[in-house]
Amino acid sequence: MAEAPASQGALAGIRVIDLTRVLSGPFCTMLLGDMGADVVKVETPGEGDPVRGQGVIRDGLSWYFASFNRNKRSITLNLRTGDGRAILADLLREADVLVENFRPGVMERLGFGRERLDSINPRLVSCSINGFGSAGPYADRPAFDFIAQAMSGLMSVNGPPGGDPLRTAPPLTDLVAGLYAAFGITAALQARTRTGRGQQVESAMVNGMLSMFAYLSAEYLATGRLPQRTGNDHPILCPYGLFHAADGEVAVAPANETILRRFLGVLELSWILDDPRYDTNEKRTARRPELRALVDQRLATRQRGEWIELLNAAGVPCGRVMNLAEVFEDPQILAQEMVIEVDQPGHGPVRMTGFPVKLDGTPCSIARPAPGLGEHTAELLAELGRDEAELERLRAGGII
Amino acid sequence: MAEAPASQGALAGIRVIDLTRVLSGPFCTMLLGDMGADVVKVETPGEGDPVRGQGVIRDGLSWYFASFNRNKRSITLNLRTGDGRAILADLLREADVLVENFRPGVMERLGFGRERLDSINPRLVSCSINGFGSAGPYADRPAFDFIAQAMSGLMSVNGPPGGDPLRTAPPLTDLVAGLYAAFGITAALQARTRTGRGQQVESAMVNGMLSMFAYLSAEYLATGRLPQRTGNDHPILCPYGLFHAADGEVAVAPANETILRRFLGVLELSWILDDPRYDTNEKRTARRPELRALVDQRLATRQRGEWIELLNAAGVPCGRVMNLAEVFEDPQILAQEMVIEVDQPGHGPVRMTGFPVKLDGTPCSIARPAPGLGEHTAELLAELGRDEAELERLRAGGII
Repeated sequence: MAEAPASQGALAGIRVIDLTRVLSGPFCTMLLGDMGADVVKVETPGEGDPVRGQGVIRDGLSWYFASFNRNKRSITLNLRTGDGRAILADLLREADVLVENFRPGVMERLGFGRERLDSINPRLVSCSINGFGSAGPYADRPAFDFIAQAMSGLMSVNGPPGGDPLRTAPPLTDLVAGLYAAFGITAALQARTRTGRGQQVESAMVNGMLSMFAYLSAEYLATGRLPQRTGNDHPILCPYGLFHAADGEVAVAPANETILRRFLGVLELSWILDDPRYDTNEKRTARRPELRALVDQRLATRQRGEWIELLNAAGVPCGRVMNLAEVFEDPQILAQEMVIEVDQPGHGPVRMTGFPVKLDGTPCSIARPAPGLGEHTAELLAELGRDEAELERLRAGGII
Repeated sequence: MAEAPASQGALAGIRVIDLTRVLSGPFCTMLLGDMGADVVKVETPGEGDPVRGQGVIRDGLSWYFASFNRNKRSITLNLRTGDGRAILADLLREADVLVENFRPGVMERLGFGRERLDSINPRLVSCSINGFGSAGPYADRPAFDFIAQAMSGLMSVNGPPGGDPLRTAPPLTDLVAGLYAAFGITAALQARTRTGRGQQVESAMVNGMLSMFAYLSAEYLATGRLPQRTGNDHPILCPYGLFHAADGEVAVAPANETILRRFLGVLELSWILDDPRYDTNEKRTARRPELRALVDQRLATRQRGEWIELLNAAGVPCGRVMNLAEVFEDPQILAQEMVIEVDQPGHGPVRMTGFPVKLDGTPCSIARPAPGLGEHTAELLAELGRDEAELERLRAGGII
């Protein structure tokens, strides 16, 4: 494709060398690319990111790969060769950011340990995304989302009451680690404007997930009591949760007494709060099935959509449990442009999720679709001043 | 307490005016404060952030509040008064960032719409964290994590096979929106170094969560087939999931054929891959209970800890399902300093989660504990040049 226009995004002018693969790292560099950074994805010749071959393939294209690798250029480099490593060093000399999600120690074995990186480019912000962090007894362990969910405590709090610990379906520990990495890198770029120097950033899947427990971790640390799995019920608020209207479920979250009054008011059940059986949260929680029946009985008199309008108008947080088909057709999701179509040359339009954080002055945008394997190898090597004869030599040697 | 030493963090020199309350916003400004920003938390006189009164209170202190409001100063301001709003304008004049998590429209009603903010301080990065985004049919709806989980599709994919849609216990949509906001703000600060201007950043809970579905959304958009709830089983890989050693559960994630070979090799079950009943993933998935029994039978011969050592040494991602008590005592979590103690004057040490993303040149740190309500009102008003007589007047008028 033709050269993309100069980026106007927040991170315009920032060059990212991306050694990552699969999910946590590519998600991080996608976020940076969406913000206008120039992301150069370094892949193994003839092989590339394994996600190129994963998920549903349509006309030779993995939509999973396409959605997490938009806004990137691809160069193939065999980093097991001296020539390949020399080209990587040249790329890093001109770059602002390096991101990798190898196991700790791999960069050192490739000859790109901390000191070497610093000598190549002292302004480089170098980020490692890994499972457990690079220090500590588990540093060398292979990581995977399911294991990070197990070891961060997430599975222990997720699940129906009385059931087993449960994985959350999306690979959240990968995505959270990628997002923390993007934040850490951008903060380090901000520090560089003051110090003139780059630094090392590290984001670990278990650490990131553990930071997301909010009151669950605070309560445990304050009391030593373990949180129980409560499914859709709130541990200490009632009524709260999933209820049943005439045509389906409604999620309702009366998070405090004021909102609970509004909720019961709309349902014409205000008497509940004056009834000695139900006049405290504690009593209501102890009689949850009775309360649920009272609420369901009222909700059964109208359609779900009507209740949602009435309750929202009264300031009661509520909504439908939507599946992905409903989400991706929802008027709010469409108004927020959370589904976008990217024209993938040779494949036609690919639908993917949009930009989760919006900036109005330097908005996120799609400057280019996901690259073919090595699509920009010649272009990038030309930028480094390598001529056609050199490219031939590198190609013949299996280096690019 | 004494004035904290000048910050050496990545965001040193950045002043954040924080109008947020409860969770998504305070989490965002905590992340900025951990990075060295000077965060000024603006609270309602005599009331403050409702989280001050939530969760377990020990010696008058909510540990939940303490952990999400470290590294902040507190000023009380009644924004319903002209004097209060004038002080806020003065604060914004000297600030770099404003963060609020009101419903869309509230800032306009307070007299701090976009144009006014721009006229007060054109370099200000202003961030709104909300439920659904400020444009679209649901913009005015009240938001709450449970509802955002329902409406983002998260509940529809979470849960045991055959069971109901399930909330994930931690309030993830709040935390993800707060983290995206911190990333967006930092990117906007980077843009400002180039453009000289601030801009508007927006992070919505539903949008943020929807961006975290990875292959689940890619597969749905590519095929129109809804993902099924599969609990701890992988939809298309087997064996994979929770298995049983002699003394408890082990999570094992053989995410590809190479790792599966290693796993079955350690178990001395390599024959499985050559058996015509089990020699493809499809066949194995169809015979999941048989495979599970074969694996469990082998695992029952040793303790969990032994298997975890053996499997990790062979490069098989695996680990224990840990509850929060185990997590917070885990040697890796301790080595990563993911539990820290903050001395809260008058209360003693408060334990909380540490820093999820690590920077080695400008590390995160605790410059100050969570503030008392209005603890820094006098100090901050003095910085704005208001004298003691003025403070008396503001106090008497209920403005601070």
